[in-house]
This record gives sequence, structure tokens and C-alpha cells, in this order.
Amino acid sequence: MSRWPSNPRGRLEQAAMDLFVERGYDQTTVAEIAERAGLTERTFFRHFSDKREVLFQGGELLQEAMVQTLAGTPPEVGPFDAVRAAITCVATFFDERHDRSQLRQGIIDAHPELQEREVAKMAKIAGALAEGLRARGVGEPDARLAADAGIAVFRASFAQWVRSEAGEMGKTMGECFAALENLVESGH
Amino acid sequence: MSRWPSNPRGRLEQAAMDLFVERGYDQTTVAEIAERAGLTERTFFRHFSDKREVLFQGGELLQEAMVQTLAGTPPEVGPFDAVRAAITCVATFFDERHDRSQLRQGIIDAHPELQEREVAKMAKIAGALAEGLRARGVGEPDARLAADAGIAVFRASFAQWVRSEAGEMGKTMGECFAALENLVESGH
Repeated sequence: MSRWPSNPRGRLEQAAMDLFVERGYDQTTVAEIAERAGLTERTFFRHFSDKREVLFQGGELLQEAMVQTLAGTPPEVGPFDAVRAAITCVATFFDERHDRSQLRQGIIDAHPELQEREVAKMAKIAGALAEGLRARGVGEPDARLAADAGIAVFRASFAQWVRSEAGEMGKTMGECFAALENLVESGH
Repeated sequence: MSRWPSNPRGRLEQAAMDLFVERGYDQTTVAEIAERAGLTERTFFRHFSDKREVLFQGGELLQEAMVQTLAGTPPEVGPFDAVRAAITCVATFFDERHDRSQLRQGIIDAHPELQEREVAKMAKIAGALAEGLRARGVGEPDARLAADAGIAVFRASFAQWVRSEAGEMGKTMGECFAALENLVESGH
């Protein structure tokens, strides 16, 4: 078991992950998570709508960070480079939590409904990036294409990185952006 | 109301679409769909697991057609060109059903849970294409990236085409593939 965070939200997250791994996701109840964290169920529900959201809370943070970076990228930067900047900015977030990401991925891989949730969250982030591009004056289909292609790179990078020993997400992202360029450029 | 198909599956589909438009998706029951089609609920459930699947049955056909085209593409064709061939092969399927696609899109746009289902189906097709590329000896991250980028083009094309008066899907796909190339190539 890893070091115990001092804030309630972090304690609940840690307790949930530990229990998901020990007992299985399906077998873990919110009551047990709260008990393990030394907190009440009421406190749990102040932080998370249900146990599933413990696994997906990071998505909101990612989306916020990406959208802010996109908005802060100079207007002369092209759509795909702006998306690349937005996606690359979250790399260090992952480097700090490789072990946790591996545990989380193992849980998600075992549950088709969690995989669907993951796909939906990624689509939501892609939608937010496309919206951010439109706000920069990018039209269709470019806004949607640049956002979806960027998220495709993000997902491929994550899949490579989470399976690696303890890679650097930024480096993996760079490789995957280069791989997409290669594929698209050699494909005509 | 459009012409009435003679086969039970087609009649059920037509009845469901008519009712979804007339009464709303949420307000339509399977019993009403069967009645409108002049068939029994039992017959409905022989063809569809629930009313939602009436909207999503096409996904299976698309996936099958794309995967078969991918498998039949000569081995010397690169990953992204092979995905492009797989995606382009379904264009005529859409041209035959522009009106129906517009109705269907209106229903999906009004229901977040149907949008999630659509996203999940697209992710499934992308997964099948990536698998098809792996069977051609394409490694990672290329297989996943080429498949996801191809599906990004498919989704962007569909979004453009379904909003157009009565465009040709093949032409729209060509424009969206070109747009992605432009974005990625000018983005470095």
C-alpha cells in the first residue's frame, strides 16, 4: 500500500484503488471505501457521485488543463500544433502517477462498461478541444479532425506508456505524434 | 411517410423511425413499433434486442464491410491507405439513405445516452480496424493510430454529409482525408 494522503479526497481515492485491487471493483462498496479511508459515506458523496467516478475524476482535470493551454496558445499557431500543445501539456501529470495508472488500467480492462465510460470521456475531451479550436476561428471539418486526431495520439500514447516500465509520457507523445505524421504523409 | 419495406426487419425499422419522429424516441414503446409494422413484439425481439438497437444496427454492417475491405487490400498497401480504402468502401451505403440518416441524427443529437452509444460503436469499429491492421503485420502505435485517425475522418465526413442537402459521402470523405493530411503536414 502506498503512502496515505492527508486530504479527504486523496484518502478516499487511495482507499478505493486499494480495495478495487484487493477485492475487485464489483465487490467494493462505497461504505467499505469510506471505512478504509476513516471517513463517512457522506464525505465520500461530497467528493464523488459514485465509486466509478473515483476512476474518472482525472478526466475533468485533463480536459481543463488541455482547454486552457489551447486557449493560451498564440493565434498564429495552426490548429494541429495548437492541439499538440494542449495534449503535450498534461504529460507530466501522468509521469507522477505511473503505478496508479497501471492499477487503474487493469481495472478498466476487466470491465467493458468502464471501457465505454473511458471512451465517452475521451470523446468529451475531443469535443472540448474542437470547441476551443472553433473559438480560435477554425472551421469544419478541421476543428473536429484536428481534435479527434490529437485525442487519437493521446490514447495511443497512453496505451504505450501505461504498458511500459516507467516511461516518460512526453517522450511517448512525441513519438506518437511523429508516427501519425509518418502514417498520414506516406499514405498518399 | 416513406415507402413501406416488405421484409419484417425493414418494416420494423421503418415503423420505429416514423414513431421516433412523430412521438419522440422516449415516448415510443416496442409494442407500438410492432403494432405500426403490423407484426408482433415477439417478431421485434427476434430482430432487435431493444428499441435503441434499431438505431445502431447499421454499425455492425459498417464494421463488417470495413474489416472485409481491409483484409482484402493488397499487403503492399500502407496502413493508412488500407484504412482509407476500408472507410471509403462504405460511402455508397450512406448515399442511399441520406433522409433516414438525417432523421436518425436528429434523434441521437437530442439524447446524450444515444450519443454515448454512438461513440462506443465508433470505438468498436476503430478497434476492429486496428485488429485488422495487426493481422497485416502493423505494429503499435501505428495500428491503433491509423485506425483511430481513419475513424476520425469517418466521423468528420459523416457530420459534414448528414448536414448537407444531399451530398455524396465519397466526395466528402475525400475532402476530409485531404483536410487531415493538410492539418498534420502543416502542423510541424
